[in-house]
Amino acid sequence: MLEELAFTLPDLRRAYAQGLQPTALIAEVFRRIAHARDPGIFIHVIDRDTLLAQAEALGRFDPDLPFWGIPFAVKDNIDVADCPTTVACPAFAYAADRDAFVVARLRAAGALPIGKTNLDQFATGLVGVRTPWPAPRNAHDPDIVPGGSSSGSAVAVARGIVSFSLGTDTAGSGRVPAALNNIVGLKPTPGALSTTGVVPACRTLDAVSIFALTVADAHEIFHEVCAYDADDPYAKPVRAAAISSPPPQLRIGIPSRNSIRFFGDDQQQDAFDAACDRLRAIATVTEIDFTPFYAVATLLYEGAWVAERDCVIGPLLDTNPEAVLPVIRRIVGRAKDLSATDAFRDFYRLADLRRQLQQVLEPLDMICVPSIPNFPTVAELQADPIGPNSRLGTYTNFANLLGLCALAVPAPARADGRPGGVTLLAQEGHDALLAGLGTIIERWGSRSLGATGWAIPDAAPRPVTASTTEVEIAVCGAHMSGLPLNGELTRRGGRFLRQGPTMPEYNLYSLPGGPPRRPGMVRCSEGGTSIQVEVWALPATQLGSFIAGIPAPLCIGTIRMADGTTPKGFLCETAATSGEAINVSAFGDWRLVLAEATP
Amino acid sequence: MLEELAFTLPDLRRAYAQGLQPTALIAEVFRRIAHARDPGIFIHVIDRDTLLAQAEALGRFDPDLPFWGIPFAVKDNIDVADCPTTVACPAFAYAADRDAFVVARLRAAGALPIGKTNLDQFATGLVGVRTPWPAPRNAHDPDIVPGGSSSGSAVAVARGIVSFSLGTDTAGSGRVPAALNNIVGLKPTPGALSTTGVVPACRTLDAVSIFALTVADAHEIFHEVCAYDADDPYAKPVRAAAISSPPPQLRIGIPSRNSIRFFGDDQQQDAFDAACDRLRAIATVTEIDFTPFYAVATLLYEGAWVAERDCVIGPLLDTNPEAVLPVIRRIVGRAKDLSATDAFRDFYRLADLRRQLQQVLEPLDMICVPSIPNFPTVAELQADPIGPNSRLGTYTNFANLLGLCALAVPAPARADGRPGGVTLLAQEGHDALLAGLGTIIERWGSRSLGATGWAIPDAAPRPVTASTTEVEIAVCGAHMSGLPLNGELTRRGGRFLRQGPTMPEYNLYSLPGGPPRRPGMVRCSEGGTSIQVEVWALPATQLGSFIAGIPAPLCIGTIRMADGTTPKGFLCETAATSGEAINVSAFGDWRLVLAEATP
Repeated sequence: MLEELAFTLPDLRRAYAQGLQPTALIAEVFRRIAHARDPGIFIHVIDRDTLLAQAEALGRFDPDLPFWGIPFAVKDNIDVADCPTTVACPAFAYAADRDAFVVARLRAAGALPIGKTNLDQFATGLVGVRTPWPAPRNAHDPDIVPGGSSSGSAVAVARGIVSFSLGTDTAGSGRVPAALNNIVGLKPTPGALSTTGVVPACRTLDAVSIFALTVADAHEIFHEVCAYDADDPYAKPVRAAAISSPPPQLRIGIPSRNSIRFFGDDQQQDAFDAACDRLRAIATVTEIDFTPFYAVATLLYEGAWVAERDCVIGPLLDTNPEAVLPVIRRIVGRAKDLSATDAFRDFYRLADLRRQLQQVLEPLDMICVPSIPNFPTVAELQADPIGPNSRLGTYTNFANLLGLCALAVPAPARADGRPGGVTLLAQEGHDALLAGLGTIIERWGSRSLGATGWAIPDAAPRPVTASTTEVEIAVCGAHMSGLPLNGELTRRGGRFLRQGPTMPEYNLYSLPGGPPRRPGMVRCSEGGTSIQVEVWALPATQLGSFIAGIPAPLCIGTIRMADGTTPKGFLCETAATSGEAINVSAFGDWRLVLAEATP
Repeated sequence: MLEELAFTLPDLRRAYAQGLQPTALIAEVFRRIAHARDPGIFIHVIDRDTLLAQAEALGRFDPDLPFWGIPFAVKDNIDVADCPTTVACPAFAYAADRDAFVVARLRAAGALPIGKTNLDQFATGLVGVRTPWPAPRNAHDPDIVPGGSSSGSAVAVARGIVSFSLGTDTAGSGRVPAALNNIVGLKPTPGALSTTGVVPACRTLDAVSIFALTVADAHEIFHEVCAYDADDPYAKPVRAAAISSPPPQLRIGIPSRNSIRFFGDDQQQDAFDAACDRLRAIATVTEIDFTPFYAVATLLYEGAWVAERDCVIGPLLDTNPEAVLPVIRRIVGRAKDLSATDAFRDFYRLADLRRQLQQVLEPLDMICVPSIPNFPTVAELQADPIGPNSRLGTYTNFANLLGLCALAVPAPARADGRPGGVTLLAQEGHDALLAGLGTIIERWGSRSLGATGWAIPDAAPRPVTASTTEVEIAVCGAHMSGLPLNGELTRRGGRFLRQGPTMPEYNLYSLPGGPPRRPGMVRCSEGGTSIQVEVWALPATQLGSFIAGIPAPLCIGTIRMADGTTPKGFLCETAATSGEAINVSAFGDWRLVLAEATP
């Protein structure tokens, strides 16, 4: 039954492979739009005939086009050719004559843009109701705000109207509405996705974001649209890796009990505590003082960056102030009091905080926070249009100012039925690592996707070998996860693949020198044993700088694993295993050697 | 004769090795200060007794302390413990209780700070005469400005009073006075040298710079002080490499004839043309349109960044405006009219220009410009305190805004006797490449150092080593030039560096298998011999794909060469040298093994 078909990427692809026609899909999308009875989701739906013609033009099912026939929605601050771009401000609206960079990539991969979605005007807000159009309704509970600014994009996915949608995320607009609607919100590393064809909110901070029903879908879309755009001055060359399994010794920071904020929502606190308890089973969880993160967050609306919004909205405010919603006028009006000198003082403050937080983040693989501290109601917002909005950004505002990537992941519902969820954040380039843990979290408990009632699909078996642009490196000592030199791999975009024993052909020696203590593994002509190693994937382009830092007597050679694979990996010159080196082969695992040495 | 001793690092070290006492050196420094008869050079000279005590405290000559007994001067916006820091503004002055990060590193290496040097007030200027103290006199011609803002530091070196000096360079303050005084001005990659303990000019752009008589001296000092300082929020981890030889196919960009500016100084144009002609003999020289570089430069004083100076000077301007020189008041006063919104518009403009210039710089190794367009006189400055100053920054202002490293290098004097010179600039991290070409340029023609009359010392023989973006790989078999696998190196952009014997610690085996026949080299605990190898440089980004193709039992480890270098290179697992492998160490060279096997 088409009406019951889940629009996740695997489900929809299976349906296409079994004969579903894209024109039938388009008809079903329109049926779902009508069925939702929410005129606030879309500001503009593309004409049915146009969409049917585009669907027809796809021709026969082509599995080589990764997004063949996949319907998606686009936040109305991102250009789609031949659609108006309004930013929820009719006086600002213009007709886009070409697709934004990210939309063009999706269209080239076969995806079908359905329409433009509602948002907080000028993407300024986290509630999703600051719009002159009817506000979208939260997909679960119309009393609760839908969350913004990408409200329409989030609700369209949560209601199963489209497979995914594009949003933007400057202060949390790609994560807060995901949390409020029980879906995935992926805010990539700043600069990873081009903002060419996107109306800026804060041009130095804006990130295009992705809403989807599952982490795997969101990451696959990210992988498709992540391409360096030389025309975007804020684009960075970021490598979108395949989803990585979390390393066995994952280190996660969480806000300390003294610094965490829920503004009285005890159920939210309980849900977060429960999530942290589950994380403790698979990771080392460390409490960190969150005060400096809040200090960073404060800078976004109370500091210089509001002037970036003034760069966009200011000209309209000068000529036609009534065209801008009063709450947006009030927020952006603050820019008039800010001098360039004030701005630089804030940049210095941010630079100091970044440096301070670098030390906090360095020994961690990621941090985990509640996506939102509480669930504001539409009524609360009407009484106070700014306070509840500001509080919603408690765990999101700081991310782009610190250059972090983030992933809002649904978790089992709270006791009162409201959506559960956490957000994972990591330093730039670690998007794939967040997705790896996200695929585990989204499977906790029984959960349906968004507001659809669909079950989460089985996890695709994850490849545990390197891609063609990576090289596998087997590590047997201080480079293993959780050990002192693991950062040499992770900061080069290394990702954990698998662990296991070598063929029984090696000896392991504890070498003199250090810290850190380092082992040397040597293949022997006879009398060897199996040694436990971890196999990581390193981007091939990074191997040179990695190897340049490896001192004698260590070498990179070829390792014979018990599973038959032959990754590159660490070996040691035999000449260095005489003298003070100690044969520790009997332990079979460097971690056990270290444990033995620690009283 | 101590009075004639050149204070270059090699000359002074030789004198110390032959018995010169640091106390005698201090006495000679004071004699030279007096002899210069220029009260404008130093704002503060450290008390003679204090310096004699510090010299005494160095003890016996210690060649392991790289700067043992080397006298240097410090621009008076950089803290030296127990000296006042004035920034040439008495009302701003404070007593420094500790050394700036860079000064502390030099002191720890044995160097002796002599005093604090004059500057354009608040380091705001390129002329060196904007100071309430007597202005330093240009070391060659007192009618010409000394150049600034680091005027005293440059003149102190040009007159041979100290071996080197520290300056700062935001807009050109470390290059312009070098060019005007016939010395070397090294402005490193932004962020490479800590600014902890430096009074900011534009905190996001400031760079500590180095004046010396030769490129080798300047680069050695850079190498010593370049260390990541986690307390400086704008510090970056930059690796200071040894000076690299320019690659054989060097690509240099120069300003096009249509866009180059000399403001009527034809001799300066002739001198630059002559320099470019000499460069053409050793490099591919390409003309590039310089208009976008000028557009970047304009932003520095006419755009947002003047507000950074206001962050420092503003509080004093508010309370005691008369304490600030009128010309500085006038420049910094512009900040009052700049809003935060204006600032962000300038950042966007810079980001656009950076992206545009990235395409220009990408296919080049470096660019070469005149260090200064002309030689303003003190009299011209008195008539117009701003115009000639602005013009002096024509080829310097853009560097830090674009994140470039730069090196001002003296060249033969012009026909009228004024100092010749060019500035080399490259993208971040390529400081050592600039120094490599600089050591060639500073030896063009016959030239004396600064205003000393000293000859340039012989160039130290340079080991042929890889650049910072390359990794050295020693090859001992089929990868050597002319042998079957050499293409694996050359098609990845590998270049030959040198050949020679390893330390006498290796055995060479002819391994079974092939073609091609391959040797395996193994370091042995005893009984080894020297093996002839070739050392190649591979771009670091190419090493991954190179190594992915190397089969067991070969490894990449570290090779100990007889010349003391330790390139990465091919080794073989010991386990593979039993059985069918043949020990061919007695040949000492794989080519001889092959020759023997060929009838």
